[in-house]
Amino acid sequence: MDFSPSPRAAELTDRVRDFMASEVDPVEPDYHRDLAAARETGTQWTPLPVLEDLKAKARARGLWNLFLPKEHAGPYAARFGTDGGEGLSNVDYAPLAELMGRSAIAPIVFNCNAPDTGNMEVLLRYGSEAQRQEWLEPLLDGRIRSAFAMTEPDVASSDATNMEATCLVDGDEVVVNGRKWWTTGVGHPDCQVFVFMGVTDADADRHRRHSMVLVPRAAAGVKVERMLSTMGYQDEPIGHGEVSFTDVRVPLANVISGPGQGFAIAQGRLGPGRIHHCMRLIGLCEVALELAIRRGTSRTAFGKRLVDLGGNRERIADARMAIDQARLLVLNAAWKLDQGGPLSALSEVSQIKVVVPNVAQQVIDFAIQLHGGGGMSDDFPLAMAYVNARTLRLADGPDEVHRGMVARLELAKHA
Amino acid sequence: MDFSPSPRAAELTDRVRDFMASEVDPVEPDYHRDLAAARETGTQWTPLPVLEDLKAKARARGLWNLFLPKEHAGPYAARFGTDGGEGLSNVDYAPLAELMGRSAIAPIVFNCNAPDTGNMEVLLRYGSEAQRQEWLEPLLDGRIRSAFAMTEPDVASSDATNMEATCLVDGDEVVVNGRKWWTTGVGHPDCQVFVFMGVTDADADRHRRHSMVLVPRAAAGVKVERMLSTMGYQDEPIGHGEVSFTDVRVPLANVISGPGQGFAIAQGRLGPGRIHHCMRLIGLCEVALELAIRRGTSRTAFGKRLVDLGGNRERIADARMAIDQARLLVLNAAWKLDQGGPLSALSEVSQIKVVVPNVAQQVIDFAIQLHGGGGMSDDFPLAMAYVNARTLRLADGPDEVHRGMVARLELAKHA
Amino acid sequence: MDFSPSPRAAELTDRVRDFMASEVDPVEPDYHRDLAAARETGTQWTPLPVLEDLKAKARARGLWNLFLPKEHAGPYAARFGTDGGEGLSNVDYAPLAELMGRSAIAPIVFNCNAPDTGNMEVLLRYGSEAQRQEWLEPLLDGRIRSAFAMTEPDVASSDATNMEATCLVDGDEVVVNGRKWWTTGVGHPDCQVFVFMGVTDADADRHRRHSMVLVPRAAAGVKVERMLSTMGYQDEPIGHGEVSFTDVRVPLANVISGPGQGFAIAQGRLGPGRIHHCMRLIGLCEVALELAIRRGTSRTAFGKRLVDLGGNRERIADARMAIDQARLLVLNAAWKLDQGGPLSALSEVSQIKVVVPNVAQQVIDFAIQLHGGGGMSDDFPLAMAYVNARTLRLADGPDEVHRGMVARLELAKHA
Amino acid sequence: MDFSPSPRAAELTDRVRDFMASEVDPVEPDYHRDLAAARETGTQWTPLPVLEDLKAKARARGLWNLFLPKEHAGPYAARFGTDGGEGLSNVDYAPLAELMGRSAIAPIVFNCNAPDTGNMEVLLRYGSEAQRQEWLEPLLDGRIRSAFAMTEPDVASSDATNMEATCLVDGDEVVVNGRKWWTTGVGHPDCQVFVFMGVTDADADRHRRHSMVLVPRAAAGVKVERMLSTMGYQDEPIGHGEVSFTDVRVPLANVISGPGQGFAIAQGRLGPGRIHHCMRLIGLCEVALELAIRRGTSRTAFGKRLVDLGGNRERIADARMAIDQARLLVLNAAWKLDQGGPLSALSEVSQIKVVVPNVAQQVIDFAIQLHGGGGMSDDFPLAMAYVNARTLRLADGPDEVHRGMVARLELAKHA
Repeated sequence: MDFSPSPRAAELTDRVRDFMASEVDPVEPDYHRDLAAARETGTQWTPLPVLEDLKAKARARGLWNLFLPKEHAGPYAARFGTDGGEGLSNVDYAPLAELMGRSAIAPIVFNCNAPDTGNMEVLLRYGSEAQRQEWLEPLLDGRIRSAFAMTEPDVASSDATNMEATCLVDGDEVVVNGRKWWTTGVGHPDCQVFVFMGVTDADADRHRRHSMVLVPRAAAGVKVERMLSTMGYQDEPIGHGEVSFTDVRVPLANVISGPGQGFAIAQGRLGPGRIHHCMRLIGLCEVALELAIRRGTSRTAFGKRLVDLGGNRERIADARMAIDQARLLVLNAAWKLDQGGPLSALSEVSQIKVVVPNVAQQVIDFAIQLHGGGGMSDDFPLAMAYVNARTLRLADGPDEVHRGMVARLELAKHA
Repeated sequence: MDFSPSPRAAELTDRVRDFMASEVDPVEPDYHRDLAAARETGTQWTPLPVLEDLKAKARARGLWNLFLPKEHAGPYAARFGTDGGEGLSNVDYAPLAELMGRSAIAPIVFNCNAPDTGNMEVLLRYGSEAQRQEWLEPLLDGRIRSAFAMTEPDVASSDATNMEATCLVDGDEVVVNGRKWWTTGVGHPDCQVFVFMGVTDADADRHRRHSMVLVPRAAAGVKVERMLSTMGYQDEPIGHGEVSFTDVRVPLANVISGPGQGFAIAQGRLGPGRIHHCMRLIGLCEVALELAIRRGTSRTAFGKRLVDLGGNRERIADARMAIDQARLLVLNAAWKLDQGGPLSALSEVSQIKVVVPNVAQQVIDFAIQLHGGGGMSDDFPLAMAYVNARTLRLADGPDEVHRGMVARLELAKHA
Repeated sequence: MDFSPSPRAAELTDRVRDFMASEVDPVEPDYHRDLAAARETGTQWTPLPVLEDLKAKARARGLWNLFLPKEHAGPYAARFGTDGGEGLSNVDYAPLAELMGRSAIAPIVFNCNAPDTGNMEVLLRYGSEAQRQEWLEPLLDGRIRSAFAMTEPDVASSDATNMEATCLVDGDEVVVNGRKWWTTGVGHPDCQVFVFMGVTDADADRHRRHSMVLVPRAAAGVKVERMLSTMGYQDEPIGHGEVSFTDVRVPLANVISGPGQGFAIAQGRLGPGRIHHCMRLIGLCEVALELAIRRGTSRTAFGKRLVDLGGNRERIADARMAIDQARLLVLNAAWKLDQGGPLSALSEVSQIKVVVPNVAQQVIDFAIQLHGGGGMSDDFPLAMAYVNARTLRLADGPDEVHRGMVARLELAKHA
Repeated sequence: MDFSPSPRAAELTDRVRDFMASEVDPVEPDYHRDLAAARETGTQWTPLPVLEDLKAKARARGLWNLFLPKEHAGPYAARFGTDGGEGLSNVDYAPLAELMGRSAIAPIVFNCNAPDTGNMEVLLRYGSEAQRQEWLEPLLDGRIRSAFAMTEPDVASSDATNMEATCLVDGDEVVVNGRKWWTTGVGHPDCQVFVFMGVTDADADRHRRHSMVLVPRAAAGVKVERMLSTMGYQDEPIGHGEVSFTDVRVPLANVISGPGQGFAIAQGRLGPGRIHHCMRLIGLCEVALELAIRRGTSRTAFGKRLVDLGGNRERIADARMAIDQARLLVLNAAWKLDQGGPLSALSEVSQIKVVVPNVAQQVIDFAIQLHGGGGMSDDFPLAMAYVNARTLRLADGPDEVHRGMVARLELAKHA
């Protein structure tokens, strides 16, 4: 169990920290103010120019596509990645993701945001040469965005066998039909492609029924029905959409890794992505705790600093203990992934998916409470952070499914 | 300990239930859809016409100003209240408030919404004849709305002695200065008056420093700086504003009950108001639990209904037990208030203020989880209900202050 | 919902409170010291003489068999009960049980201890005249004790259909076989009879399989294999035994209410008994909270009273809120039982069976913590109280079974 | 952050695991049965012969004094320790302590039980050559036992400045007076020495007031007043005593590291000891979870295995997640201690002292619940394990003190 980052990762961590301190942190409050103003005028889905500026700066400093995985980055690390020419292990990337998670925009700035990272990984690991050339390269280049279309409004999507959308092979084409929601990424004007999951062969073995298909945003029959909000937030300019697909025809060559591979790809896609999500949440937790302490030591009531009232110090200690445990658990999952791949880390990855969002929800809730009404407003990043954490108790599988996975593996030890 | 409603209250409960089933429930989904559309066009602060229609219907059926308190309603119950000509006890009003709380608009429909109810109570109990004529009567008539301006952005407002805003007596005028936020009600175009709390005499005894002053919305020097959101919601058309008061001059006669009475009025204002808030939240809890069960019995995953998976049935049981306990605790506080007035129920009122919002937060969180991503969206009333519950852990005093009150009284028993 | 005790119950409550203050409280510390000494010499199963003295005093004051239920007490209330000649409702008895629960010996002193009360109720409600004469009268008279034999060591006894013990009809006899444990009451030298539950007809409908049989302690084939401890405590002189029954023959007339009635009797037996258990635990909670406050205000660390350190005040408030809610819930269940009988209060009785022991475990745990190491010792009644509360999360059905019942009834509302 | 054990530690872990499987596990049930029988005859304080047999076997296999710390073991590792001739780091010893913690007797078998390990460490780090020769060598040799006398019955001992016991220098003697309780180890007939902490100079700086003195068990004026129980358990043959010291005179040379060094020694003593305690509790957690799963998969109710009922699988998952996080947190604290010594790991050591006993209490509580009544009895090691975990929320500083330490260090980061 060695969670130490490599020297290169340690050096990158320093550079990302510096970049965020000098470039991101100073402009982020303005960013949110400008975005709020854009909402008033209905232009919130047009990315603010500062994002492109920051992306260019990050890339110029060699802080670009840091998520590229050691094992699968191949030649792309040299062409589109950080100088050094190779990807990072999960243990190495973890502290970088934590740093990025401290900011709502940093993941975009470093071209490391969901769902693009997951989609890029899918193309790296399972895509054909042609698919990579058409979609992966512009994604790595930051020229286009992508969306991920899996969850459906009409069924309990935590059970993939409930999926109703179809992508049926018809000669050298695939015909895509269905309705998806929580299709993250579709709000962005640069979004040009969906990774779409649907049923290809309902009679096949349950792990061979589904396919993943690349569906161009511009294809006939694709319609974004509406954008969804999560407790009032829409996460512009990325956003979550409800999208209908009606007799959408794409070339058979757009199927990733061939028909029937959807389930296998989904399994492979999720391991590192969950590490990323969880480490970003750890970063949010640290921000929340820091804000709580700063607020609690700068305001007074009843003759004492807020931190010195009631159980506030205990809650600060509880937050520290929960965060440190959560981070260690994520590092452990990252290390297991690095050592043996996704199948060796099924329990560990499900564990972090339960633990971290719940810890984050609790720590941020406490930070909100210490901020009084201000904590519920957008004067602080806490309310949005809270909704983010709460959402992640559902996204990528609800708590209950992951607890079920952990229990199943635990029972198997003593069968 | 007799929590049974009077026959008249039982009969009113039936009538309110019927009215909601036949008039409110059928139009509420459309209401929220229309409000969302209004947000797109920037007209969300103009109340939708259906609200006035419903108000007229409710009043025509004699379901109007049901909150009017037995002890203080005086002649107003006969003139503006429900037929019968008298107000209700807290125990009698409690089940009515629970019913209204099931809907986001019902409290407005019955002219029983915060902060107007609290402001009307203040005028009933402490207002002069002239103040009542000018402000209370149109409020009871539903012609105008009011706002309550107490919390301040720059200090920990949970400690009233931190208050910085002033209302200084200058001859036969009062000069109002300061900045308030979370001034609920100010978003409504009919809002014509603030109940404003400020410091009149900083050197007086700490319970005699403050005054409450009626400040017309149109007075020179009043400026609504911005509307605030709570986790992305703005609670249109009532809303919460940040308001600056700059050398606002109002007649000395606008001071309620005379200078220095602010603290005493605040104490008297809050008892029944907290009963109302808490019973409305109980209503929300029942809605959330019902929705959770309906969703959980109508969707399946892994071959079972959602309610039959994992710990969901236990959580349903936990919700039922928590709600029933919370309701009994509120009824107990209402009964104590009825028996002996606010000073006899200090612990009980603080208890419910802690317990009920926390129970609601937990029950609604569970209902969201059973709804998957949909629970976070506005397709169900859960996300907004959650934010409502969360906000009430801060509004009217944070959990911590109320726990402190309960503990203080508990220690005093064994001093 | 009227939880007010009748005037007679209020008066009895005062008299029990006085009796406990003047007679029980002064001798209880000595009682525990003497019992500890008796353990050293192996005589702990011989009841200390003070118990009989107190019983005589209580009876002389008319505080005897207070548990006798209004509806079923019949002529026994006049002959063996408290002056007044009739039993009490559940709402009336509840505050008496709370008072008795403050002491480990008071329930015995007032002849109101489990399992004798439950067994007496069974005989009152379902026993034949002969059974009552032989067993009920001496029990009411305090001359003998009884035990209840239901749980079995080899199966999950939370599911009655798992029961393996048998009581087979053989002509005019019943042949009893099986092994029981947690047979409470068997440690007492005056224990002369078991209420034994077993399978009479394995092929009958699942609610008609079992019978309850009166088995004399002295019958051939009855053997107390050992006494059990709960976290080190044996609850002398009542105790919990593991008992084997080998070809024990008793007259057919010893079957209560006839063969096949066991399940129905068990259902009827448990409602009031659970009210009693829960109200006694509420009494323990109040003792624990009072001790916590007394300790916390009399000892200092780091320059402050213990109660003023960290989150201790919040925990005191939490305890008060939890206890008050729990008590209201029990009163509500008692009131429902009084209004409509056990079948009308299935959810309510299961609710309290979950809520109260969990609250008690938590409140007592806090009180132990405030007492430091002393709280774990027998210098205070807290450690034993804790084990008592913990045990009641299992006895009379584990939490999980009761949560299941509450959930089932909740789902049925929306089926 | 490298938590990997050294090759030698990994090999020792295998050997300890094998030894426990082949030598300890097979005899432990008999051990507890024999101890229970000894209690019946009042001989429970005489260690059962099997303990000495096991000690001899463990020593013969080179599994002896494994706790010896790398940095302070000096020549004693070669003389009394495991072959290899040097002590282990905290990270290396951690998995060994976890294994030992699975058994109630294993720590004694390997001469690694508290409080002897802590006392031996004190002598290793701070003792004079003469003190080591007289007390350390026979302790390392397993010929004698020791006790630790710090906590006092009359004050809140969580604050060392409350300490009332004295050890005053009088010429070349020290005069020891005071009353201590929770003096662990004093029950053992081989206990020959106390490490006693008292006030030497009440006027000195608060960190220089106390001394630690070696007081022979046989010294005049030492009296074991009584043995204490924790929820009914006495932890024979080690035990916890209340001990009075009346004008006990010992040579000045018995003061460890000189007068006034008591506080410094206490600080140094506790770091590794807390690692040991916590890792042993982790071992207990694993045993409890394993027992819960075995019971839950082998018994059925309502047609399902217990593990498949209600929320049991979720609780199994929660237990696994809590245990894994707790273990990682302890390893992290061990690693910090190894890297920078106690002062660099203040927060980490306090963190584990809060987290691990609370996790253990919760996991074992769940395991008890799955065992029904049996879980509360001594038929399974769960009840005793629970009391052990609960006690450790108080011993070596209550949760509250450690949370306070974590909070203080957290606030200091942002001061």
